[in-house]
Amino acid sequence: MLGTMLDNVRKNVPLVHNITNYVTVNDVANVILACGASPIMSAEPDDVEDITTICGGLNINIGTLTKDSIEGMYLAGTKASELGHKILLDPVGAGASRLRTETSTGLMEKVNFTVIRGNISEIKTLALGSGTTKGVDADVADKVTDETLDSAVAFAKSFAKESGAVVAITGAIDLVADAEKCYVIRNGRSEMGAITGTGCQLSGMTTAFITANPDNVLEATAAAVCTMGLAGEIGWSYMREGEGNSSYRNHIIDAIYNMDAETLNKGAKYEIR
Amino acid sequence: MLGTMLDNVRKNVPLVHNITNYVTVNDVANVILACGASPIMSAEPDDVEDITTICGGLNINIGTLTKDSIEGMYLAGTKASELGHKILLDPVGAGASRLRTETSTGLMEKVNFTVIRGNISEIKTLALGSGTTKGVDADVADKVTDETLDSAVAFAKSFAKESGAVVAITGAIDLVADAEKCYVIRNGRSEMGAITGTGCQLSGMTTAFITANPDNVLEATAAAVCTMGLAGEIGWSYMREGEGNSSYRNHIIDAIYNMDAETLNKGAKYEIR
Amino acid sequence: MLGTMLDNVRKNVPLVHNITNYVTVNDVANVILACGASPIMSAEPDDVEDITTICGGLNINIGTLTKDSIEGMYLAGTKASELGHKILLDPVGAGASRLRTETSTGLMEKVNFTVIRGNISEIKTLALGSGTTKGVDADVADKVTDETLDSAVAFAKSFAKESGAVVAITGAIDLVADAEKCYVIRNGRSEMGAITGTGCQLSGMTTAFITANPDNVLEATAAAVCTMGLAGEIGWSYMREGEGNSSYRNHIIDAIYNMDAETLNKGAKYEIR
Repeated sequence: MLGTMLDNVRKNVPLVHNITNYVTVNDVANVILACGASPIMSAEPDDVEDITTICGGLNINIGTLTKDSIEGMYLAGTKASELGHKILLDPVGAGASRLRTETSTGLMEKVNFTVIRGNISEIKTLALGSGTTKGVDADVADKVTDETLDSAVAFAKSFAKESGAVVAITGAIDLVADAEKCYVIRNGRSEMGAITGTGCQLSGMTTAFITANPDNVLEATAAAVCTMGLAGEIGWSYMREGEGNSSYRNHIIDAIYNMDAETLNKGAKYEIR
Repeated sequence: MLGTMLDNVRKNVPLVHNITNYVTVNDVANVILACGASPIMSAEPDDVEDITTICGGLNINIGTLTKDSIEGMYLAGTKASELGHKILLDPVGAGASRLRTETSTGLMEKVNFTVIRGNISEIKTLALGSGTTKGVDADVADKVTDETLDSAVAFAKSFAKESGAVVAITGAIDLVADAEKCYVIRNGRSEMGAITGTGCQLSGMTTAFITANPDNVLEATAAAVCTMGLAGEIGWSYMREGEGNSSYRNHIIDAIYNMDAETLNKGAKYEIR
Repeated sequence: MLGTMLDNVRKNVPLVHNITNYVTVNDVANVILACGASPIMSAEPDDVEDITTICGGLNINIGTLTKDSIEGMYLAGTKASELGHKILLDPVGAGASRLRTETSTGLMEKVNFTVIRGNISEIKTLALGSGTTKGVDADVADKVTDETLDSAVAFAKSFAKESGAVVAITGAIDLVADAEKCYVIRNGRSEMGAITGTGCQLSGMTTAFITANPDNVLEATAAAVCTMGLAGEIGWSYMREGEGNSSYRNHIIDAIYNMDAETLNKGAKYEIR
């Protein structure tokens, strides 16, 4: 059950190394704490190998690259791969610029990623080697809907097989797939799109979940995705008169902080294909 | 009417490229989302030209410079100028250090800014070539008050003429001027000064407004300034017992999220000189 | 009395230069504003000397180092020492990586720190020259408890004597010591550990307090530590149903914003050893 995955995070308190963008880094740290894990941030090439060594998981997010942070990603990713750590890639904006596309695909060649999480446009860029990403939002024509679900599930499984990673494609409907099996998840609310960084937050939390559940990466990733979406639903129920996206951000993180296994098991809306 | 300017942001959903400081970047992103636009952040020289090309507007904020981000500002600013994009300069702390003053004035030579927004001290630094800015707040002697209003309006118009940009000078009284016309705006509350980055937030939002209203830059800028101040007033009305500057920040962004054209038209307090 | 220390911050409005990590920088700025001071952030080597010159205090936090920010720390720290400014060191993660340990100890050789604030593990790393820090949390075996209090107080005084700085060791029990005298402080709540950056916030606020109270550094530091812990207690009393670590963060900063001398004097729980 998914709830066990969350329990294991709170029990094991994994230390998660994050090389992540400066836009949403504070929320990423608070979400990792909210789910019961412990975050540490470091992007400097001279620092990342020591830091990743004392951690159990590594979250690489390319949202705001610098020359040095790219070097840090390669060094940390290589070291964490050697150590057998769980490693997640969040290819923010892959397809929107040459540098983001090349950094994502370059990292995939050198680093043994456990999970790759992005929107459909970013994941397509990685799969196809070139993309049409418009900013950091999935292109409209590429949305995962009930109409396009069959082909999207097939795509997710096929990219999972090709990459050797669990693939999480998030949007109105979320897909979490390995080569054989795909969770189709329908938690969350569209208003979450008006908050910056819910994707980055999910990537940080997913890294915590897979680090705490090393033998159940697929289920742990699905549990993290359901936790985020369900927190979006619960958080919305606490919205008061006059509140908007800024308060909603707080309510969602609060809901993760208060999430327990029973709530997650009851609220998770998914089918397996 | 100013409300139409806001409607156009929500209708056009402009993509805004931000090269902005890491102190307030998360709030800037959430404010841009709150008003109905979409933010993307990138400062790396190898990334900025691709990113700015897919956007409609560019927001340059010099709050925390690095050698690389300065290079990114010149590259993005030049590219965006070539493409005819709307470009805003927020000269945070110009006058407080040589680097900030020189970066601001250097950018003004190379980049075709649509709007320049700062406090009176920063704007005077740009206009006069040297300044007495104390930190990022306007020097007390330089405040725009009813007593100094006539000369401040004249100064704003004259700097707008000289620079070719719409000039927004914000403080207790806000001025938004082109060479001919100056909005004198009296929205907002003094308690907004106890929140870090309300100026940065306004710059991000203003970039969204001018990008969505390319043929009405002066009015769009005035609409953004009124929206921010009015959100400060509405946000304050939601303050509960025990709340302070951190909750006030959330209330203000929430108020922008919930702002509509009618509320803006009714609540905007301005005269045109 | 400690309350006088807070009054002096609100009266003198010290300008505090921060070279701090990008994870918690926004909260640090809002906390400095909440207690009545004014923050400015700058890490770029070409900018820091000008900026620190116009400030009264300098807060150096090594949470997310870059090559350039390290150079900025040395330049700003040296300049601020020459000018006789109050300077605080927050050695985040010292002991967790060679770079962090060497940067902390290297800075201590060149910069005349007024206060050093960290958890017991970080402070031990500085004192012993090598450490066993696990991430940024104090090692369990090294917690300051009633059982280990006598030796911890002795350690704090001895490191204060050796370093020439006031030493603040924060955790479940907080210690603030110079060579002769140690405040043992029991404010705060364990739930504060689920918020990223309460330590960074305290370092920023402490810099404001010592800058505004130059002749009472020990008492000013104790006042800042009590203010933070007491704000954690008051903030908790405002927690509503469904709230968690994200809202708690806001309540704490709000409580600092609303703190007055009388509340602080009544709520501070400390003994002097």
